[in-house]
Formats: sequence, C-alpha cells, structure tokens
Amino acid sequence: MIAQTFDIESMEKSFRTNLINHLSGGKAVHLIGTFNEQGQSNLAIFSNVIHVGANPAMMGILFRPVGADSHTYKNIQANKRFTLNHIPFSLAQQAHQTSARYPLSTSEFEACGIEEERIPEFDAPFVKQSLVKIGLIWEEEHLIKSNQTILLVGKIQYISVEDSILLPNGNIDLDLAQSLSAGGLDSYYQLKKVAQFPYAKVSADPSHEPRRNS
Amino acid sequence: MIAQTFDIESMEKSFRTNLINHLSGGKAVHLIGTFNEQGQSNLAIFSNVIHVGANPAMMGILFRPVGADSHTYKNIQANKRFTLNHIPFSLAQQAHQTSARYPLSTSEFEACGIEEERIPEFDAPFVKQSLVKIGLIWEEEHLIKSNQTILLVGKIQYISVEDSILLPNGNIDLDLAQSLSAGGLDSYYQLKKVAQFPYAKVSADPSHEPRRNS
Repeated sequence: MIAQTFDIESMEKSFRTNLINHLSGGKAVHLIGTFNEQGQSNLAIFSNVIHVGANPAMMGILFRPVGADSHTYKNIQANKRFTLNHIPFSLAQQAHQTSARYPLSTSEFEACGIEEERIPEFDAPFVKQSLVKIGLIWEEEHLIKSNQTILLVGKIQYISVEDSILLPNGNIDLDLAQSLSAGGLDSYYQLKKVAQFPYAKVSADPSHEPRRNS
Repeated sequence: MIAQTFDIESMEKSFRTNLINHLSGGKAVHLIGTFNEQGQSNLAIFSNVIHVGANPAMMGILFRPVGADSHTYKNIQANKRFTLNHIPFSLAQQAHQTSARYPLSTSEFEACGIEEERIPEFDAPFVKQSLVKIGLIWEEEHLIKSNQTILLVGKIQYISVEDSILLPNGNIDLDLAQSLSAGGLDSYYQLKKVAQFPYAKVSADPSHEPRRNS
C-alpha cells in the first residue's frame, strides 16, 4: 500500500488509527503506577515510553491530550512520583485490561488482579510481578502544539532488575525478561534476540569502507 | 539488582549506559534517510522513534545533543524532509554499521551497502529493502532542558507498506515484517506475536470487575 497526505487524511478512521500506530514498529509497553491525592493507587498501560538519557538517567512518556480520564497524568502532577514496570507475558491480559475506563475511585491493581507492591525507598506503587521496576520523579514536560499531546520527562531515582536477567555489562536479557512489546493498540509481542554487534567504526568492516564520492 | 539515585550516579559509566538504555525495554529501530544541502544522501540508525498521533499522522525522534556529527538533525533543519525505514533482519549488520562516524561527504547507503531508493512523490532518500517506508516533514521540536536532547516531531506525508504484511484493519503484522527492535545500544531482537485483545471495557471480564473500595 502506498498513501500520500490526501490518502492518509481520507482513510477510514479506525484503519488509519491502527496503521499509524504500527508505523513506529514494536513499542515497549509499561505499566505506570501512581497514587492520587487521596493515596489511592492507579495503574495504567502505556506504549509511548522513550529513553531520554543515561546520565542523568531519564525516561519520557508521551501522554494523549489531557481529559477527564487522564488519571495517571493528573496523579503525576499531584505527587511528582510514578513507577514504570515491565510487563511479563504472564500479565498480558491483566495489563491490557488496565486500559478500561475505571473510575478514579478504583485501583486497577485490584480491579485487574495485579499485585501491588509498596516499598519504603520510593513513594509510588510498583507491580510486584514485574522483573524490571523503575521509580521516577517529574522533571519537565513539553506540550506538542500540533496535537496537544504532552511529553513528560522523569528522572530515574530507583531501579529494581531481577538478577537472573541482568548481564555483567549492564545489558538486560529481554528474551529472558519476557518483557512485552506492543504493535498498535491491541497486539502484544515477545522479543527474540537475533544479533549483537560491537560499537561500529568506519574501519569496522573493510567491505563497507566508504568510497570517495566523485 | 536494586539501585537508588546515589547508586545510579556512582555506577561505572558503560554499565550505567547499557542498563539505563535497556530500561525502556525493546525499542523500535529505524533507518533515517536525509539529504544534506548539497543533495548528498545520509542514512543513520535510530532507536528513539515514538508514535505521536494518528490524526494528524505524526511521529517523533529524540535526538542526542547536537554536535559536529549530528548530520541527520542538521539535514532535517536544512531540508525539512526525512524518511523512517523499518529494518528487516537481513539488513541488521549494515544498519548497525551506519552508526559509525562517517564524514559528511560519505553516503552511508554506499558505505554500508544499503540500496537507496528515490521516488518522485517525496524528496528524501528511502531504504529500498524496507517493507515499511515513511516520509515525514518537520513540524515542531522541543529542547529537553535536563540533558539538551531534542524531540523533533514530523508530520507523515508518505507511507509505503508491503501489501503482504498489511492486515485488513490497518494493523501491520510485525512477525511477518521481521522489523527489528533494539535492546540498549548493541542488541537486536525480532518480534513474535503472543497475544491480541479487544478494546478493554470495565465490564469486559467479570472476574476483573472493580470491587467497591471501603
């Protein structure tokens, strides 16, 4: 299929939504845990998490335009702290269910059968079964004018990675971790490692040496 | 492993870089094609591409702080147009090689043995072998103050998806597409579909009905 601007704008809405949501390829999915101002826990699945920097250690989330149901965004504004939790395959169905529009008075941990973990070191709720748990504090945010989405950047203050999936060089074995990725809005994928390469140098591969351009 | 702020700051540099780059989970990787002001093509691998919105159709790229080698960023500033190309497994090694510091006068297409495709409909270079090719035009950008990275948002103007991987509802079969994902800076993964769920409703799963909080 080939589509240009006018084709894209005239696509049937759900077809366009599915297609455009797949163009970024496999997206990491995380469960974001927050407390509201009453201390009620909230848990929501997000597939718009991005690495921002390693030093200082920061990650970002792109939020849809803020509305009545934006519990996670509002909770972060109120408490500044939130958690990102990798989703093991065993939690796929429950994790997807957190995207239902539960009322603010409901904890998705309870409603979706996901075990909540609270720790003294960081004041936001974690997903107990996750092998990778990250605690972050609000650092800055930016409004995307074109569609009113918001990039929220958090600084990493707490990291818990299961020893069995952490490699000596700091890499995480995403095969072993069974952390889910998402395709579009309804499909979930597991990762299978197929290649690893050393830091690329111009001279790394003689057969790929640059030729002089005439 | 459990690490708090002070542990993270005192980690050995490459260990921290690898670890933090893995916390976002599997990251979609794309080859970004641009022309410089002399019409010289440039191709670079990026793992920081994010879905921004379906209508208007937009995607974003988080760029490292701009330096002498930021050819892709500078080319987009000059020409506004760029392409995102999914990376099939067969191109993994050549795609990784584009991350070497080739001089501005060198086309990574040539240097890394990747076939360049130019089309009349969109004025930026595509990767011929990619099954998913996207043409975008600069829309807006935002400086992340905490670390001087830049979120650049582009509007999608051209889409080419191989018919064999496009499903009737607009989803792309990422298994069939063999589009690579990345773990950290050196590891590449393929995606295997493990689940698909309908739009989640509060009443979707009786066993997960929310309980009244006392």
